[in-house]
Amino acid sequence: MAVVLITGFEPFGGESVNPSGQVAQALDGHVIGGARVAGRVLPCAFDDAIGALDAALDELQPSLVLALGQAAGRCEVSFERVAVNLVDARIPDNRGDQPVDEPVLPGAPAALFTSLPVKAMARALREHGIPAGLSLSAGSFVCNALFFALMHRLATRRGVRGGFVHLPLLPEQAARQPGAACLPLQLMVEGVRVATETALAVHADLAVPGGTLA
Amino acid sequence: MAVVLITGFEPFGGESVNPSGQVAQALDGHVIGGARVAGRVLPCAFDDAIGALDAALDELQPSLVLALGQAAGRCEVSFERVAVNLVDARIPDNRGDQPVDEPVLPGAPAALFTSLPVKAMARALREHGIPAGLSLSAGSFVCNALFFALMHRLATRRGVRGGFVHLPLLPEQAARQPGAACLPLQLMVEGVRVATETALAVHADLAVPGGTLA
Amino acid sequence: MAVVLITGFEPFGGESVNPSGQVAQALDGHVIGGARVAGRVLPCAFDDAIGALDAALDELQPSLVLALGQAAGRCEVSFERVAVNLVDARIPDNRGDQPVDEPVLPGAPAALFTSLPVKAMARALREHGIPAGLSLSAGSFVCNALFFALMHRLATRRGVRGGFVHLPLLPEQAARQPGAACLPLQLMVEGVRVATETALAVHADLAVPGGTLA
Amino acid sequence: MAVVLITGFEPFGGESVNPSGQVAQALDGHVIGGARVAGRVLPCAFDDAIGALDAALDELQPSLVLALGQAAGRCEVSFERVAVNLVDARIPDNRGDQPVDEPVLPGAPAALFTSLPVKAMARALREHGIPAGLSLSAGSFVCNALFFALMHRLATRRGVRGGFVHLPLLPEQAARQPGAACLPLQLMVEGVRVATETALAVHADLAVPGGTLA
Repeated sequence: MAVVLITGFEPFGGESVNPSGQVAQALDGHVIGGARVAGRVLPCAFDDAIGALDAALDELQPSLVLALGQAAGRCEVSFERVAVNLVDARIPDNRGDQPVDEPVLPGAPAALFTSLPVKAMARALREHGIPAGLSLSAGSFVCNALFFALMHRLATRRGVRGGFVHLPLLPEQAARQPGAACLPLQLMVEGVRVATETALAVHADLAVPGGTLA
Repeated sequence: MAVVLITGFEPFGGESVNPSGQVAQALDGHVIGGARVAGRVLPCAFDDAIGALDAALDELQPSLVLALGQAAGRCEVSFERVAVNLVDARIPDNRGDQPVDEPVLPGAPAALFTSLPVKAMARALREHGIPAGLSLSAGSFVCNALFFALMHRLATRRGVRGGFVHLPLLPEQAARQPGAACLPLQLMVEGVRVATETALAVHADLAVPGGTLA
Repeated sequence: MAVVLITGFEPFGGESVNPSGQVAQALDGHVIGGARVAGRVLPCAFDDAIGALDAALDELQPSLVLALGQAAGRCEVSFERVAVNLVDARIPDNRGDQPVDEPVLPGAPAALFTSLPVKAMARALREHGIPAGLSLSAGSFVCNALFFALMHRLATRRGVRGGFVHLPLLPEQAARQPGAACLPLQLMVEGVRVATETALAVHADLAVPGGTLA
Repeated sequence: MAVVLITGFEPFGGESVNPSGQVAQALDGHVIGGARVAGRVLPCAFDDAIGALDAALDELQPSLVLALGQAAGRCEVSFERVAVNLVDARIPDNRGDQPVDEPVLPGAPAALFTSLPVKAMARALREHGIPAGLSLSAGSFVCNALFFALMHRLATRRGVRGGFVHLPLLPEQAARQPGAACLPLQLMVEGVRVATETALAVHADLAVPGGTLA
């Protein structure tokens, strides 16, 4: 049976939970679209996260990878389109490292695009009543670094597709941050399930406008 | 057994659902803090809403009233502090009326304050992991008008307390409005349950700062 | 010659400037619409501000009063519609006082409306290319308290009209607050000049919708 | 005398003005940091803009290029860090073309980084009291396409540096768009002057954190 790897992160930045790690754990072992999900929670540290990703790719040999991360300030499930080969950490990661203006992977391209049908995935979520959209920047912290490393690894694994999905805060996190939007865990689990199903079923993305002016 | 009246509204403004009406219906018949909830869905029209409120007050003789309404653009359960005797409708109501710069009730005071312990209620929700806060304006549409009429009616009903609570959109509504925050129905039902329980138990509000600079 | 009193505030909250005080000073001595402007900078403290307002009203006997204040987070010149008889200070004022849930003036009404033609004023600014709008809450700090005291005093001064205008930050303030909007001093001075001219010329406000849904 | 090319755009999207074109025109002929500014206004159309850029590069042989564009919704002068080889037009350009999910330049890299010292430039503006910051996405419309084409051309012009700067709306534009932030033309002209001066003087950027978490 084909394997879908879904990764999330451990909590960081003073939080005690992280929706991305919880969604990965919730879907671990599920069967979606005929494939078995392996959910993994990665350390929120630059080097450790990429090392853990590499180990999971080798162990699981997935045919599809969805990496998830937390994005405080967003109100919807957000499908990232492009990973940038840039690290510029606004806060230290969970190991205390705070690299500034370094490449994720020296010598690699400046950016790598998702290989997921992100427009079809976002539309599928919205049709299921789940707020969703596209994003042109995954930031410059651990999320973007893992996304970049993922797309770099997949470039040499024929037929394996992957990408990155940012999730809003959980309600219990937003309850401590006035003005912050959130989505409940159950809806994000369902959103990632629908996204996975869509990614498995759709290979050519929708040819509809989805960009931003600036 | 004491009765708590919880009102919500029918859908308006082109929507097919309204979280406030759904929460009122979901709690109808529940027992909270030793009181029985009567949930009612009001028409979203200036005169009809106030008429339906008056009928419910007469029929049910509640000891506590929580009026609920929908507030697109907010991300938390929002406890209103003050109702203003002003109608200025940006869109027509569900009967097609669009009054501009008229009083809700001619001859009544310029404003009426909530009689609920809103700081204790907001804190209780946050302690339950539900995003919540205070608001100094309920707008100038049907929500504010109903809130004003409610506080006007309660001014002559000894010992009956009440107030207004604005709720964010439901996820299925936000899925069609890019950039809009939402909360799931179940969390808002739980939030209004906690709010009701707190209102029944607390009579002197918390003496903590909760205002805004501007 | 008729006198227009325009008040602003001294800096507060750790800032070294306050656009409202600067605009009041910039217009001091100008003649607008046949009236002479007296610009005054008030202390940003609850009791002192109201005392200084009373002294200025007695000394100048103005026929029109525009009170100005700073509103970080707003992007337009904002005409307040209603002052609330509530003080709930999120931070201490410049004298160190931080009242919570007290009336501005004990025994006074719950709220008082502006007596300015705010819709005509906002439209006039926009026609001059200056971002402007209406607001239903002036907060619960010193700005709202002064606004309330002003409308309370004017209620017993026949024919004297007045109201409150919130101004965005200055660019030099926004340069230290990422994400904050601003307007340049010169545009705000021009905006308050146009607002004054309109208030002097227009006595019945425009009958156009200008409210908010929530 | 060395030449600095500063480009802006003509109005688009139903606007009658564009701050970027106005700033480019305002600085045309000025001398900044010992270099002469050539200001050019480009068509807001994918092919025509790149053609006009190429013509200006050939004609002027600049040693520094600042391309400017309009970004409704931003409140500060925004220095772009990375151009993406992706066009996804949400609206038609001024020639009526609306490409979706095409490369800016087929066969070129997925992204190209600015070669300007953007952290030093943003800090210099803030020290001059002008709101400024960094951005990790220039969108997927004509601004990003021109930015990408610029960095592609400069890759083969030794010693020529360049980048892209997004500007907020002008006040007269924001006056017609409730909720939109703006900066006055004069402040944006001064901001681009300071940015140019800094770019000419600084070759190694500041090693300070400037990234975003997501």
